[in-house]
Amino acid sequence: MTKQLQQSMFEAVEGELKRQVARLDQPRTKPFHEMLTYHMGWTGEGAGPQAAGKRIRPLLTLFASASFEDKEEMDKNSSMKWLRAISAAASIELIHNFSLVHDDIQDNSDLRRGRKTAWVIWGAPMAINVGDALFVIANQSILDLQKHYPAEVVVQAATVLNDCCLALTQGQYLDMSYEERTDLKMEDYWPMIGGKTSALLSACTQIGAILGYAKPGEVEAFRLFGHHLGLAFQVQDDILGIWGDESVTGKSAASDLVEGKNSLPVLFALEKDGEFAKRWRQGPISMDEVGAIADLLEKEGGKAYAESMSEAETGKALGCLQQANPRGEAGEALLGLANMLLKRRQ
Amino acid sequence: MTKQLQQSMFEAVEGELKRQVARLDQPRTKPFHEMLTYHMGWTGEGAGPQAAGKRIRPLLTLFASASFEDKEEMDKNSSMKWLRAISAAASIELIHNFSLVHDDIQDNSDLRRGRKTAWVIWGAPMAINVGDALFVIANQSILDLQKHYPAEVVVQAATVLNDCCLALTQGQYLDMSYEERTDLKMEDYWPMIGGKTSALLSACTQIGAILGYAKPGEVEAFRLFGHHLGLAFQVQDDILGIWGDESVTGKSAASDLVEGKNSLPVLFALEKDGEFAKRWRQGPISMDEVGAIADLLEKEGGKAYAESMSEAETGKALGCLQQANPRGEAGEALLGLANMLLKRRQ
Repeated sequence: MTKQLQQSMFEAVEGELKRQVARLDQPRTKPFHEMLTYHMGWTGEGAGPQAAGKRIRPLLTLFASASFEDKEEMDKNSSMKWLRAISAAASIELIHNFSLVHDDIQDNSDLRRGRKTAWVIWGAPMAINVGDALFVIANQSILDLQKHYPAEVVVQAATVLNDCCLALTQGQYLDMSYEERTDLKMEDYWPMIGGKTSALLSACTQIGAILGYAKPGEVEAFRLFGHHLGLAFQVQDDILGIWGDESVTGKSAASDLVEGKNSLPVLFALEKDGEFAKRWRQGPISMDEVGAIADLLEKEGGKAYAESMSEAETGKALGCLQQANPRGEAGEALLGLANMLLKRRQ
Repeated sequence: MTKQLQQSMFEAVEGELKRQVARLDQPRTKPFHEMLTYHMGWTGEGAGPQAAGKRIRPLLTLFASASFEDKEEMDKNSSMKWLRAISAAASIELIHNFSLVHDDIQDNSDLRRGRKTAWVIWGAPMAINVGDALFVIANQSILDLQKHYPAEVVVQAATVLNDCCLALTQGQYLDMSYEERTDLKMEDYWPMIGGKTSALLSACTQIGAILGYAKPGEVEAFRLFGHHLGLAFQVQDDILGIWGDESVTGKSAASDLVEGKNSLPVLFALEKDGEFAKRWRQGPISMDEVGAIADLLEKEGGKAYAESMSEAETGKALGCLQQANPRGEAGEALLGLANMLLKRRQ
């Protein structure tokens, strides 16, 4: 039953995303439109569900919103009341994708979900514009809420969305500015992932609650749920980037060490200033030695520390969710999605 | 008197822009904040009024808005009622600057208003993020209207702004996709400059009218005024880019021919398919021959045609302005600004 709700929502999200992006499907800008549909995973080489991704953020938004509907009301009301929030769900996914397109240029990444990135195919100038267009359409999508919500609610949702976007650019700035630094401390980590990962997930749950007409205290509990969910998720991702099973994560494990990424386990060991820190400061790690270095990092406690932090954030996230007390089928789905995100190794 | 109003507005715009951009002035993101203040012309080498520019777009917005205030009311009301629209005026200037920062990366331009461009100083990855942040802050600024306007008006203004931004990305796409084409016709020109130049100017006048609580017919007249003003302005710019006086325009004349820009005079001559077209299709024009080629283009009617189109659009713009019937001192200032924009050679 929960699976069925999730499937209905997923299909509604895909449909809404396609409708929103089709704003560019005009006689003179068809090739431009195709750049966006390629990136979204719908067209071009390798198109399909794998390329599109799981659309976790819009689902989180819709679950959060729907969890404020009464169960009886949902059963009675075959018109699927959660559909009124669909353009906000699409908006957040478009923001996520705008940041991915620009990220790929900034990081010089050739591949995304196993396919060539936009800038590799069309060049950086066009890809910058693709990201910009995704961002614009995200804003148009959130404003489309005016079809189903009073203007006050639309302004509130759009304000949360753009505040989150500013945090995204700040996280991105920190991430890039950290690249050349070897003096980073663990306290530098949280503001970065707070912006890069957590801001968008907390926007999902906060906007979802707002669109479910939740009370201010409930909105705040949902915001905090998304915030801690994002932190836990990112720390998990850091652990998987070093010790993950390639067949599960879909990307080469240990690559984060080779790429010199300032992940939490690394920052822990740098602050500890032992053998790992010494080797890290000597320069790039090669694929040959990466296994031994990962073992060293684990021995020095980097993995255990990150796991403990991930568990702490997971605990906070689930605590907030409990406090928010999401109702009905959507509430169950929300818990399911959170568990799925937080226990990705299983 | 009108000069005094313009000066008050200019200062208010600068103040509001600084307040908006200061959202990034936080302990960890001060260097990021400085990238934005540098681009805006306030800090760094060569900072000053010349680097900041004339802020024509926000002035246009404020004049349009203020022209719906009664003259008596303006005299009586020393609290400067037009100030309520200040965050929208700032928003449009931020959109303009977001597009400039990304444009400079896309065009590989080293200089902007005589200063090094952001990407030259901090690299393209950082500069992409600077543009993104300007865009986000523009959206936050327009939403700040909620302090002074009902939510319905805020949503209306934000919708116009983002529709204009989509047109911007479309114009940018067309501009870039035209670069390698030699089969362009004059009909390809108008959609490009409609997006690149005209959309933002029409957003200024339309949003200004909306924020002055104009009636729908008046809003439409103001929108069209900005639209035609933008087209006339861009065609003027094309003419100046080939035959302009360097001491007036501040950039090397004839550079548009050397850069191979698909300006209106060039497209006219390409469609005519005479001597100029033959030479154009043979490849880049050097600085040595540019004078002779400009003369050839003038002889074949490219300059006269562009001038006639600029005059036609100017006529339409002034006709729409007359129809809109802007009142009082702000109305005069609006006409003055339009004349200034449209007769830049004088």
